[in-house]
Amino acid sequence: MGGKMAKTDWKAEAKTLKKKLSKLKDKAEDVAEAVDPAVVKAAKPVSPLAPKGGFPTLPLIAGVEYAAVEAGVRYPNRKDVMLIRLAPGTAVAGVFTRSSTRAACVLDCQAKLGLRVPADAGAAIIVNSGNSNAFTGTVGVASVAAVTGEVATALGLPASRVFSSSTGVIGEPLPHERITAKIGELMHGLREDAIDMAAQAMMTTDTFPKGSSAVVQGDGGDIRIVGIAKGSGMIAPDMATMLVYIFTDAKISATLLQKMLSRQVDDTFNSITVDSDTSTSDALILAATGQSPAAEINGRSKIAKAFEAALRTVMLDLAHQVVRDGEGATKFVEVRVTGAASPEDAQRVAMAIANSPLVKTAIAGEDPNWGRIVMAVGKSGAQADRDLLTIRFGDVLVAENGWRSPGYSEEDAAAYMKQQDLLIGVDLGLGKAAKSVWTCDLTHRYIDINADYRS
Amino acid sequence: MGGKMAKTDWKAEAKTLKKKLSKLKDKAEDVAEAVDPAVVKAAKPVSPLAPKGGFPTLPLIAGVEYAAVEAGVRYPNRKDVMLIRLAPGTAVAGVFTRSSTRAACVLDCQAKLGLRVPADAGAAIIVNSGNSNAFTGTVGVASVAAVTGEVATALGLPASRVFSSSTGVIGEPLPHERITAKIGELMHGLREDAIDMAAQAMMTTDTFPKGSSAVVQGDGGDIRIVGIAKGSGMIAPDMATMLVYIFTDAKISATLLQKMLSRQVDDTFNSITVDSDTSTSDALILAATGQSPAAEINGRSKIAKAFEAALRTVMLDLAHQVVRDGEGATKFVEVRVTGAASPEDAQRVAMAIANSPLVKTAIAGEDPNWGRIVMAVGKSGAQADRDLLTIRFGDVLVAENGWRSPGYSEEDAAAYMKQQDLLIGVDLGLGKAAKSVWTCDLTHRYIDINADYRS
Repeated sequence: MGGKMAKTDWKAEAKTLKKKLSKLKDKAEDVAEAVDPAVVKAAKPVSPLAPKGGFPTLPLIAGVEYAAVEAGVRYPNRKDVMLIRLAPGTAVAGVFTRSSTRAACVLDCQAKLGLRVPADAGAAIIVNSGNSNAFTGTVGVASVAAVTGEVATALGLPASRVFSSSTGVIGEPLPHERITAKIGELMHGLREDAIDMAAQAMMTTDTFPKGSSAVVQGDGGDIRIVGIAKGSGMIAPDMATMLVYIFTDAKISATLLQKMLSRQVDDTFNSITVDSDTSTSDALILAATGQSPAAEINGRSKIAKAFEAALRTVMLDLAHQVVRDGEGATKFVEVRVTGAASPEDAQRVAMAIANSPLVKTAIAGEDPNWGRIVMAVGKSGAQADRDLLTIRFGDVLVAENGWRSPGYSEEDAAAYMKQQDLLIGVDLGLGKAAKSVWTCDLTHRYIDINADYRS
Repeated sequence: MGGKMAKTDWKAEAKTLKKKLSKLKDKAEDVAEAVDPAVVKAAKPVSPLAPKGGFPTLPLIAGVEYAAVEAGVRYPNRKDVMLIRLAPGTAVAGVFTRSSTRAACVLDCQAKLGLRVPADAGAAIIVNSGNSNAFTGTVGVASVAAVTGEVATALGLPASRVFSSSTGVIGEPLPHERITAKIGELMHGLREDAIDMAAQAMMTTDTFPKGSSAVVQGDGGDIRIVGIAKGSGMIAPDMATMLVYIFTDAKISATLLQKMLSRQVDDTFNSITVDSDTSTSDALILAATGQSPAAEINGRSKIAKAFEAALRTVMLDLAHQVVRDGEGATKFVEVRVTGAASPEDAQRVAMAIANSPLVKTAIAGEDPNWGRIVMAVGKSGAQADRDLLTIRFGDVLVAENGWRSPGYSEEDAAAYMKQQDLLIGVDLGLGKAAKSVWTCDLTHRYIDINADYRS
């Protein structure tokens, strides 16, 4: 007050202030953008857990051709229908959702797989995204008949050998005429090297297409297996469904193929969960063209075992990719339960942990909250003795003998939880049964994706 | 450029800009506060679903006294331990969590309720918040013995008549000496008219204390029932657990009291779910002092029926209040299943809907997404026929005969979903079994509360 005042250069001051104001406005806009779910949603970034390097290069399978087109079923400007032709002599197996409200196309596939077929029958698969044709009553049944019938006519196949899947919004009539109008174009576009287009055409809320492959040395030549999957939840019937197609050139009977598939599905696709919700449309079709030079695979041979192991690898890889594309996922988590009194108990405990919203939000928060693991074990209904329980996060021993381990370091556990791929190990100390399941964390983005109005 | 320039008053311009800058800075701070979960958490607003008018005025129950103190178990500057003294001759009944990892105090209560007691025995209940003493091994058992032992000595009761509960963080040793140090103070503070303090002292993540009451006309006088509850999830063992204490002046045997309690718990507290997670510490204790002038209640009398109905009303009201305080809840939802082939199926379908993250996020988004209801029915494992299913949101008929109802209006349904209290009605069209359960929506705030590190 009493000091000498320098003369203020108001012009310079105003300029500085204007700059500051402009910067702050920009910042405010950035913040608003980061917060606005509509902007976040529009961006639809690829899952941080997506495999590095993008869609893999998959080997060709003699006898399998793919095509995809833009049919405008619901999404504009993208391929949304794909057709796959399988050569005469192809054996087909499948597993499907156990939902009691499953879609018409699922029921149709199941009925067709139950039929006897001539050994030289060909087959086809047609899949659309954007509309699941689920809970659409008799209209939906008619749509399946129309689509599979037209494909059968175009490709010269019996309708009983044309399998279809639909994925997308539920309860809306499928505009099947948009699909049937494109069957000619699809047929002429069929190519052996277009599996990536097929994988893309069936995406809905998926953020990346999913593919995997394996090669087995057969008796007289290589046997190849390739697979593609879509799915981004376990899964919303609204916009997401798990669909899986696996092809091999193995010579193998449909019966043996089905046996192997059914055996391997429990520890692969039935061991993943994103949100504990089961789709009305889940379908997995496995087809073997028999065009490998290798000899036919028989039930108890070494090659049968190797083939089944390779099949399992492809199935597990695709199942993991579905979890890695789980809606809003930022962490990929294996829950490994050991020492259970029975396989059912191991499964129960593993799924109770993997489906617990409290466990999944703690993982999102990178919080080594082992108390919630104890809670999930307790609620599972499985035989468990609090004082025999051992819990590990990766290699960090967390709890044993009914309490936090004496050597437990919260710092070590917290550091471990910052990793992207996590292992939660629970030993029940009661028996020899074990089970691994895979899941992801529960984040704000899951709510952004699913609390949004469907428009 | 070519026009005449007015001379700029740079000083005034600078002043205006300064004001603008200051306003924008304030706004930016507001936005930052709204976004920062730490600030959001600290604010801890009362649930929008809390009963209007705050904690109810509850009648006094002759023979029941309450006290609460600040013991500093974990939370500073708030009452966190409460003591309840029950007069000689009080009959006690209880139901507890079925978790196989339940806490030491739960096991202790269950053991004590199994004992024969003299007809004139008094009793006491002591409850602390801030630490659940769960998964704390033999140290935890010793803490329960210390606390209940000291209360028994102070009040001149056998230790077998002192029941305890602990709620709060899991896996940390309970600093029980902080509780035992306060028993004298608690004893001297006991008052008949302090039930509100007891309800407050046991709150953890709760945003409001919960109370309810009923009066029944007995043979020779009124019979009163009062109850208090805490709980804010179904529920996190980390910070939240459901605890319920109900008192009555009825003359009634412990055996009949237990029978009524067990009968009513399935359709009340076992019919609510916030997040499908079950606490290690849930406990409900019901005590009857026998000090009403009304005659003793006998098994098959009209008054017994009226009393049981009143008890049910109090239990259901408290159960609903727990849901209304569900972590992050903005909607209170009744799921009413009818037409099921068996009571087990009705329960299965109702819980599958109430626990589905996809259904719960749709409700948060005010989206009448009936496709997700169909999905939840399908995954429940209950007998269901897609084509017999009827779905209603309130009075809005949504789906029937395996498809969207012809008269369905998305506008009407969307308008209905904007209400705070919602009814989802599902008729399976198969049999006569029915079941109602109550739940809340799944919001960002649930994730804020639960993904946050425990510090």
